[in-house]
Amino acid sequence: MNYDYLLFLAIILFSTKLLGLVTRRAHMPQVVGALLAGLLLGPACLNLIHGSTFLNQVSEIGVIILMFMAGLETDTEELKKSGLASFVIALVGVIAPLLGGLGVAYVCKVGSDDLPASTFLQYIFIGIILTATSVSISVETLKEMGKISTKAGTAILGAAIIDDILGIVALTIVTSMADPSTNIFVVLVKIVGFFVFAVAFGFAFYFVIQKWISKDPRPNRRYVILIFAFCLVMSFCAEAFFGVADITGAYAAGLILSHSTKREIVYQEFDTVSYMLVAPVFFASIGLKVEISSMSSNILLFTIALLIVAILTKVVGCGFGAKIMGYSNRESIQIGVGMISRGEVALIVANKGEALGLISESLYAPIVVMVVITTIITPILLKIVFKKKTARPVSAV
Amino acid sequence: MNYDYLLFLAIILFSTKLLGLVTRRAHMPQVVGALLAGLLLGPACLNLIHGSTFLNQVSEIGVIILMFMAGLETDTEELKKSGLASFVIALVGVIAPLLGGLGVAYVCKVGSDDLPASTFLQYIFIGIILTATSVSISVETLKEMGKISTKAGTAILGAAIIDDILGIVALTIVTSMADPSTNIFVVLVKIVGFFVFAVAFGFAFYFVIQKWISKDPRPNRRYVILIFAFCLVMSFCAEAFFGVADITGAYAAGLILSHSTKREIVYQEFDTVSYMLVAPVFFASIGLKVEISSMSSNILLFTIALLIVAILTKVVGCGFGAKIMGYSNRESIQIGVGMISRGEVALIVANKGEALGLISESLYAPIVVMVVITTIITPILLKIVFKKKTARPVSAV
Repeated sequence: MNYDYLLFLAIILFSTKLLGLVTRRAHMPQVVGALLAGLLLGPACLNLIHGSTFLNQVSEIGVIILMFMAGLETDTEELKKSGLASFVIALVGVIAPLLGGLGVAYVCKVGSDDLPASTFLQYIFIGIILTATSVSISVETLKEMGKISTKAGTAILGAAIIDDILGIVALTIVTSMADPSTNIFVVLVKIVGFFVFAVAFGFAFYFVIQKWISKDPRPNRRYVILIFAFCLVMSFCAEAFFGVADITGAYAAGLILSHSTKREIVYQEFDTVSYMLVAPVFFASIGLKVEISSMSSNILLFTIALLIVAILTKVVGCGFGAKIMGYSNRESIQIGVGMISRGEVALIVANKGEALGLISESLYAPIVVMVVITTIITPILLKIVFKKKTARPVSAV
Repeated sequence: MNYDYLLFLAIILFSTKLLGLVTRRAHMPQVVGALLAGLLLGPACLNLIHGSTFLNQVSEIGVIILMFMAGLETDTEELKKSGLASFVIALVGVIAPLLGGLGVAYVCKVGSDDLPASTFLQYIFIGIILTATSVSISVETLKEMGKISTKAGTAILGAAIIDDILGIVALTIVTSMADPSTNIFVVLVKIVGFFVFAVAFGFAFYFVIQKWISKDPRPNRRYVILIFAFCLVMSFCAEAFFGVADITGAYAAGLILSHSTKREIVYQEFDTVSYMLVAPVFFASIGLKVEISSMSSNILLFTIALLIVAILTKVVGCGFGAKIMGYSNRESIQIGVGMISRGEVALIVANKGEALGLISESLYAPIVVMVVITTIITPILLKIVFKKKTARPVSAV
């Protein structure tokens, strides 16, 4: 028996945490540090750790748990409150980067004939990666500035939730189409089938577990374990029976359980497993997949274009959506800027795409660069666009 | 990519918890249920799930975490209080089953020439498996009966702690000797080397982390992660550089950190990862390794003999130790009975032995039977030997 994986795991835990703390001190999310740790340990730099089945499968469980938690966190009440305005902002803010990503991929011709899916599907997938906003960095910045309860702040929060759901829908459609042998009709039937399955099985499980929870206020371990098993079954069924991404299943499981009275405790327990074991492995493994040597001049150009498109399409798209819904120019820009940063979900989607043969490994580097830079600039830009406001009407107060 | 492991994991989590709750309702520890779940899912019964690298490595991390927690729980203060009496009880109670196990293995000739280690070492290893008492079931039973603070109850608690440490020492010596090319001198040097390393590196880490913890009372995630990495490094170094079992390294890591002011929180976080993911996989994977078809009549005979020896050697050994230290006859029997049950540690040691080529897989069935039956009968016997006492001197009260 080879025990190297113990050492590798220790190195991953140590380095992701250490660099996570460093980036945190620099007012960036710890995800950035974890990504950098993976870059450092992988073939791009020290070449210390290589991917393995163990790391892949632990990291897949990490992704499932992260998406389940994202679903669990979804505040459907908040969603109802923010309503139509957030929906329109999110919708335009998803369509713009989707088309933008598709366009950049088409111009740079980053699709590969070696992959099983059609090149057009590969191009669209780049667009999908650009759709999901990671709102946590904006929320933290706005809280720090005391601007979270402004009209723009509320709109950003609401739009980010819907943005996630729209992103998952887009991902579901594209992954279902990834199998080249299926036609569009079969794809639609499968998606509808998954939706029916998720609602039927999900709510059946929800009502049983909720009844049990409310009857028995004792230790919650048993519920948490059963909920974890449920989440895994939803993920598995999504992949195995409906050709839908496993993370869609996990997100749906979380969304259904977001109504549970034990939501907080369940979240906390999943969070512990996530931060202690599976999430660091996932973030590091993304970094591990980046190879600088594979950066041809075309990929380098694509990286720059992708980054610019990622930033502009969110600012313009969400800003335009906000403008339609009657926000002022300044507020529209604030909302657009607040939606720039990409994070976990972009990485999760990219990871999924590679597993499905929709993107090649050479695209990891541009995507990681895009995630890191959009994350870094968002708080900086937010401070600028929110400061303007206080700079002007001070005399009026 | 194959997603079956998600389903397997879900089935393992669900069935171990379900059967764990069933055995709990029958006043048995949940470990018994988890073992039965593995038996049910594996080749012994339904043949649904097979071992895989993923399950093996997750279960190894499970073992490391369980042993780390055992070390962390060790109450060195309690140990000082119970002192010499507990030490003598534990010592005789370790030597007796060690010799008893060796004897049974020798008589039944369960050693295999196909294994790399000498048959004598294989025989001794059966003895080692019998050494470690799992005191939790006795503690629960005694608490329920209100007898935990009796003289016998205190002695059982103290002896069980020392029993664990002696078992680890015996395991360390035998695993170091498992490599047939090394001589006894090298083995001793390696063990001493590991001891020096564990103390030096362990306490260096302890002082650094303790200083940090006391300086910074904020969220504890960073400490927990670093402590997990430390535990993995200790496990890895034990195996890789000293030929000592990885679980010895994990136990030592836990023992060193048992003095930390954050011990409770660290324990809690590890416990969550353990119950939610890694421990169910470990217990189920033990059950998965049992093959009934491999039960020859010799193995069946061995199973019965092993069970009888496991029970008698603890009752007689610990009872004799107690008698030497001046306990009454009744108390000595109570103490002996309280030490009968075997649990996690016996399974962990057996698992280690198989990885090292010290026992063959065909011995899993007898060992699982021994663990399950000693666990079931301990509370029953405890109630009998403790009831006697109240039955007599009632008139004197």
